Amino acid sequence: MAAQHLLDNGQGVIDPDTYFEIQTPPPNLAQDEAKVRDFVKYNLAKNNRLVLVTSGGTQVPLENQTVRFIDNFSAGTRGATSAEYFLEYGYAVIFMHRQHSLQPYSRNYTHSTNCFLDYLELKPDDSMGVSQAIGPKLIPTFKKYQSVKQRNMLLFVEFTTLTDYLFLLRSITLIMAPMKSKAMYYLAAAVSDFFIPAPKMAEHKIQSSEGALTLHLDQVPKFLKPLVSQWASESFIVSFKASHASYITCPSGTHLFAQLETDSRLLVPKARAALTRYGHQIVIGNMLTTRKRDVTLITKEDDVEIHLTDQELRDEVEIEERIVKELYKRHGMFISTGKSCAVDGMAGVSSL
Amino acid sequence: MAAQHLLDNGQGVIDPDTYFEIQTPPPNLAQDEAKVRDFVKYNLAKNNRLVLVTSGGTQVPLENQTVRFIDNFSAGTRGATSAEYFLEYGYAVIFMHRQHSLQPYSRNYTHSTNCFLDYLELKPDDSMGVSQAIGPKLIPTFKKYQSVKQRNMLLFVEFTTLTDYLFLLRSITLIMAPMKSKAMYYLAAAVSDFFIPAPKMAEHKIQSSEGALTLHLDQVPKFLKPLVSQWASESFIVSFKASHASYITCPSGTHLFAQLETDSRLLVPKARAALTRYGHQIVIGNMLTTRKRDVTLITKEDDVEIHLTDQELRDEVEIEERIVKELYKRHGMFISTGKSCAVDGMAGVSSL
Repeated sequence: MAAQHLLDNGQGVIDPDTYFEIQTPPPNLAQDEAKVRDFVKYNLAKNNRLVLVTSGGTQVPLENQTVRFIDNFSAGTRGATSAEYFLEYGYAVIFMHRQHSLQPYSRNYTHSTNCFLDYLELKPDDSMGVSQAIGPKLIPTFKKYQSVKQRNMLLFVEFTTLTDYLFLLRSITLIMAPMKSKAMYYLAAAVSDFFIPAPKMAEHKIQSSEGALTLHLDQVPKFLKPLVSQWASESFIVSFKASHASYITCPSGTHLFAQLETDSRLLVPKARAALTRYGHQIVIGNMLTTRKRDVTLITKEDDVEIHLTDQELRDEVEIEERIVKELYKRHGMFISTGKSCAVDGMAGVSSL
Repeated sequence: MAAQHLLDNGQGVIDPDTYFEIQTPPPNLAQDEAKVRDFVKYNLAKNNRLVLVTSGGTQVPLENQTVRFIDNFSAGTRGATSAEYFLEYGYAVIFMHRQHSLQPYSRNYTHSTNCFLDYLELKPDDSMGVSQAIGPKLIPTFKKYQSVKQRNMLLFVEFTTLTDYLFLLRSITLIMAPMKSKAMYYLAAAVSDFFIPAPKMAEHKIQSSEGALTLHLDQVPKFLKPLVSQWASESFIVSFKASHASYITCPSGTHLFAQLETDSRLLVPKARAALTRYGHQIVIGNMLTTRKRDVTLITKEDDVEIHLTDQELRDEVEIEERIVKELYKRHGMFISTGKSCAVDGMAGVSSL
């Protein structure tokens, strides 16, 4: 019975506690915890709101000496952009991100196809400067970055693998727990669904000799469950539900639109099912193809659609600004009432 | 029989021509070809030596709408560093690299854990400058970068997936063919061994519902074969054979050293087998763990070990400088005699 419990929860998936027993924590976990502890202490004393933003994809090693791995694509745009707007709204931000994914403020400069050196120029006095092409535009961004750093409002924590991510998530959440309702979790990272457990990895060796390769992966336990019910039960938790159009089998392409429509209509019910399952405050649903212009915030009481117009997109309005604005309001209600409430429109009025 | 040929070469692996028939070329292939054609024409007229450096890992999609993929880890250090030394030796360089992997000249600044903005500072006149901490060190690097760009000696071409890589490799090699013995191929990219062929991908959909995931991948055909025998048969070709220690089953760790020793001794015979199989000029063998201080160049006539001392490592000598120096000499011999010859030591003397 105990052995059965250790292996899975009876549904073929191990439980979250077992995950932490069988996997090895990242080597720098203690340092990261110390850093986060100082940051939380500082912001707790200041009575600041604090948000943990997770961002980027997680890597799942396929071998012990990791050369090959399965990865989830995510540049980290949603997380990096949202972090900037949270800072604008006065939040302290722990930015827990995949190594080399996009970061707040530098995000418009690092993942371009330009080489970093293309932004620089040699000045007449033989010192290095930033090229005229980007310098003037960069100055306000740079000042904001300097300011949040100087005011100790932004802390970077890095992960690479799924295991790094999960150990860090648990640690940081437990350290943030004393912030209670002032803490928000904005879980924008694209987390792997499947992994090879460490005990199975030992047997696992990829042969590159002739023939095909077959890989067996186990499902990752659902960590949102202990996060909501145990680790951060008094805080405001926002998760994401991304959906992409199903693969279209019809080679003529004629069913494409209908299929996208169907997937899009399924998004809200799926997101609501996640909210009901875990019992947290908000699920943000988006389609992969339209994620920069359309999202839906699903709460216990209402759905809020956020949509950017063509004109707003041309004006470089970022949808994360609208998302964070809405969350700021709702988090405020949560802090003052201890409940997540709708604040706009009929649904909001009737539920207050 | 024709159908059998289309599926595999009788050993369970499709042949390279079939690969190009069943996979879709990257959308920007024609633009990249045009760029490379201009670059080759320019350097052919100048009578320059030209090297194609491939660098970074390739991605293998697991789904049609790619969210998950299998990736090969490679930051691209070997390729980016070597490209700089090839430029020092007067080569024109086509740097064909994985998107966001390390690039020559910027390589010491882009993959650090520092944010790009940490290198900058606001000057008293409110213009953006490079911080004093890195500015002075950056200047010589920046000048070299500017110089090779202005002299049209360095061309960047990007890939992400295995398919991008292989289509580009074939195209660029065919465009470079008129350079004959003046062309070198320095194939440092970490290329995937397994993939899911496009026709199988259609059936393939990852379900994230309860339960385990099983993936079936096919072996990637050996593209070095047509590259050596058909696409670039008159040029100087350098491939890499990396080896990492086998997984150690003994939990006490006592067999670790013996195992590493065994793997290390197997490296040269393995690299020589690759040279014999494909019939090209040089295989560079290295162990993954010691690749920054030890490599062996295997040619038809001899083995050359390159080893950096502790003092050299402390002095920040880069092993790629030694590798490129050796290749420069051997490529020179190849150009003048049409044969790859050993140039140093007894093996060299006796074979001349």
